[in-house]
Amino acid sequence: MAKFMDVHRGMEGITQDQLVAAHRADLAIERDEGVHFERAWADPKDGVVYCLSEAPSADAVKRVHERAGHPVTEVHPVPMEVS
Amino acid sequence: MAKFMDVHRGMEGITQDQLVAAHRADLAIERDEGVHFERAWADPKDGVVYCLSEAPSADAVKRVHERAGHPVTEVHPVPMEVS
Repeated sequence: MAKFMDVHRGMEGITQDQLVAAHRADLAIERDEGVHFERAWADPKDGVVYCLSEAPSADAVKRVHERAGHPVTEVHPVPMEVS
Repeated sequence: MAKFMDVHRGMEGITQDQLVAAHRADLAIERDEGVHFERAWADPKDGVVYCLSEAPSADAVKRVHERAGHPVTEVHPVPMEVS
Protein backbone atom coordinates (compact mmCIF):
# COMPACT_ATOMS: atom_id res chain seq x y z
CA MET A 1 0.00 0.00 0.00
CA ALA A 2 1.16 3.50 -0.77
CA LYS A 3 -0.08 7.04 -0.50
CA PHE A 4 -1.41 8.94 -3.50
CA MET A 5 -2.50 12.50 -4.15
CA ASP A 6 -4.84 12.92 -7.09
CA VAL A 7 -6.04 16.12 -8.65
CA HIS A 8 -9.39 16.83 -10.32
CA ARG A 9 -9.61 19.95 -12.46
CA GLY A 10 -12.56 21.74 -14.04
CA MET A 11 -14.56 21.61 -10.79
CA GLU A 12 -15.34 25.32 -10.68
CA GLY A 13 -18.31 26.07 -8.45
CA ILE A 14 -18.32 22.72 -6.64
CA THR A 15 -20.33 22.94 -3.41
CA GLN A 16 -19.64 21.34 -0.04
CA ASP A 17 -22.63 19.02 -0.61
CA GLN A 18 -21.26 17.93 -3.99
CA LEU A 19 -17.82 17.31 -2.47
CA VAL A 20 -19.34 15.21 0.32
CA ALA A 21 -21.47 13.27 -2.20
CA ALA A 22 -18.46 12.59 -4.44
CA HIS A 23 -16.36 11.45 -1.47
CA ARG A 24 -19.16 9.13 -0.27
CA ALA A 25 -19.47 7.65 -3.77
CA ASP A 26 -15.75 6.84 -3.62
CA LEU A 27 -15.98 5.39 -0.12
CA ALA A 28 -18.91 3.18 -1.13
CA ILE A 29 -16.85 1.23 -3.66
CA GLU A 30 -13.22 1.81 -2.69
CA ARG A 31 -12.90 -1.54 -0.94
CA ASP A 32 -13.35 -3.38 -4.26
CA GLU A 33 -9.96 -2.01 -5.31
CA GLY A 34 -8.27 -2.04 -1.90
CA VAL A 35 -8.23 1.77 -1.86
CA HIS A 36 -9.01 4.11 1.02
CA PHE A 37 -9.69 7.78 0.39
CA GLU A 38 -8.58 9.62 3.52
CA ARG A 39 -9.30 13.27 2.84
CA ALA A 40 -10.25 15.63 0.04
CA TRP A 41 -9.94 19.40 -0.30
CA ALA A 42 -11.62 21.68 -2.82
CA ASP A 43 -10.93 25.08 -4.29
CA PRO A 44 -14.28 25.93 -5.95
CA LYS A 45 -12.91 29.16 -7.39
CA ASP A 46 -10.08 27.60 -9.40
CA GLY A 47 -12.01 24.35 -9.76
CA VAL A 48 -9.40 22.05 -8.24
CA VAL A 49 -10.04 19.09 -5.93
CA TYR A 50 -7.22 17.19 -4.21
CA CYS A 51 -7.79 13.68 -2.83
CA LEU A 52 -5.39 11.88 -0.52
CA SER A 53 -5.64 8.11 -0.57
CA GLU A 54 -3.92 4.91 0.40
CA ALA A 55 -3.98 2.39 -2.41
CA PRO A 56 -2.16 -0.52 -4.04
CA SER A 57 -1.56 1.49 -7.25
CA ALA A 58 -2.38 4.69 -9.12
CA ASP A 59 -4.54 2.63 -11.47
CA ALA A 60 -6.65 1.42 -8.56
CA VAL A 61 -7.24 5.05 -7.52
CA LYS A 62 -8.23 5.90 -11.09
CA ARG A 63 -10.63 2.96 -11.34
CA VAL A 64 -12.50 3.92 -8.16
CA HIS A 65 -12.84 7.56 -9.22
CA GLU A 66 -13.97 6.52 -12.69
CA ARG A 67 -16.59 4.07 -11.45
CA ALA A 68 -17.83 6.67 -8.94
CA GLY A 69 -18.43 9.05 -11.83
CA HIS A 70 -15.58 11.54 -11.46
CA PRO A 71 -12.62 10.35 -13.53
CA VAL A 72 -9.20 11.80 -12.76
CA THR A 73 -6.12 12.09 -14.95
CA GLU A 74 -3.49 13.20 -12.46
CA VAL A 75 -2.53 10.69 -9.76
CA HIS A 76 0.79 11.21 -7.97
CA PRO A 77 2.33 8.65 -5.67
CA VAL A 78 3.51 10.55 -2.57
CA PRO A 79 5.82 8.11 -0.84
CA MET A 80 7.20 10.85 1.41
CA GLU A 81 5.23 12.76 4.02
CA VAL A 82 5.91 15.08 6.93
CA SER A 83 3.59 16.42 9.60
CA MET B 1 -7.86 31.72 9.13
CA ALA B 2 -8.36 29.47 6.14
CA LYS B 3 -6.89 26.31 4.67
CA PHE B 4 -4.50 26.37 1.75
CA MET B 5 -2.89 23.76 -0.47
CA ASP B 6 0.28 24.90 -2.19
CA VAL B 7 2.24 23.10 -4.85
CA HIS B 8 6.00 23.16 -5.46
CA ARG B 9 7.20 21.85 -8.80
CA GLY B 10 10.66 21.04 -10.12
CA MET B 11 11.52 19.04 -6.97
CA GLU B 12 12.62 15.90 -8.82
CA GLY B 13 14.79 13.69 -6.65
CA ILE B 14 13.89 15.34 -3.33
CA THR B 15 14.79 13.07 -0.42
CA GLN B 16 12.92 12.47 2.82
CA ASP B 17 15.67 14.35 4.69
CA GLN B 18 15.32 17.34 2.37
CA LEU B 19 11.55 17.32 2.77
CA VAL B 20 11.88 17.24 6.56
CA ALA B 21 14.47 20.04 6.49
CA ALA B 22 12.28 22.20 4.25
CA HIS B 23 9.25 21.61 6.48
CA ARG B 24 11.27 22.49 9.60
CA ALA B 25 12.50 25.70 7.94
CA ASP B 26 8.87 26.67 7.36
CA LEU B 27 7.84 25.78 10.90
CA ALA B 28 10.69 27.84 12.34
CA ILE B 29 9.33 31.09 10.93
CA GLU B 30 5.66 30.42 10.19
CA ARG B 31 4.47 32.15 13.35
CA ASP B 32 5.73 35.52 12.06
CA GLU B 33 3.01 35.36 9.42
CA GLY B 34 0.34 33.61 11.46
CA VAL B 35 0.68 30.50 9.28
CA HIS B 36 0.77 26.86 10.33
CA PHE B 37 1.99 24.19 7.94
CA GLU B 38 0.15 21.00 8.86
CA ARG B 39 1.42 18.38 6.45
CA ALA B 40 3.44 18.00 3.28
CA TRP B 41 3.64 15.20 0.72
CA ALA B 42 6.26 14.65 -1.96
CA ASP B 43 6.42 12.83 -5.26
CA PRO B 44 10.18 12.77 -5.95
CA LYS B 45 9.69 11.13 -9.34
CA ASP B 46 7.47 13.86 -10.82
CA GLY B 47 9.08 16.50 -8.61
CA VAL B 48 5.90 17.73 -6.93
CA VAL B 49 5.48 18.71 -3.28
CA TYR B 50 2.08 19.53 -1.76
CA CYS B 51 1.82 21.50 1.48
CA LEU B 52 -1.36 21.86 3.53
CA SER B 53 -1.50 24.91 5.75
CA GLU B 54 -3.76 27.10 7.82
CA ALA B 55 -3.09 30.76 7.17
CA PRO B 56 -4.60 34.23 7.08
CA SER B 57 -3.95 34.55 3.32
CA ALA B 58 -2.26 32.98 0.30
CA ASP B 59 0.30 35.78 0.40
CA ALA B 60 1.25 34.85 3.97
CA VAL B 61 1.85 31.26 2.81
CA LYS B 62 4.00 32.54 -0.06
CA ARG B 63 6.06 34.81 2.22
CA VAL B 64 6.92 32.00 4.63
CA HIS B 65 7.94 29.62 1.83
CA GLU B 66 9.99 32.36 0.17
CA ARG B 67 11.83 33.35 3.35
CA ALA B 68 12.47 29.68 4.12
CA GLY B 69 14.19 29.35 0.74
CA HIS B 70 11.66 27.44 -1.32
CA PRO B 71 9.37 29.91 -3.10
CA VAL B 72 6.06 28.66 -4.44
CA THR B 73 3.87 30.00 -7.22
CA GLU B 74 0.72 27.94 -6.82
CA VAL B 75 -1.30 28.49 -3.62
CA HIS B 76 -4.93 27.38 -3.61
CA PRO B 77 -7.38 28.27 -0.88
CA VAL B 78 -9.25 25.04 -0.04
CA PRO B 79 -12.24 26.25 1.95
CA MET B 80 -13.96 22.87 1.63
CA GLU B 81 -12.71 19.61 3.09
CA VAL B 82 -14.02 16.12 3.71
CA SER B 83 -12.54 13.25 5.66
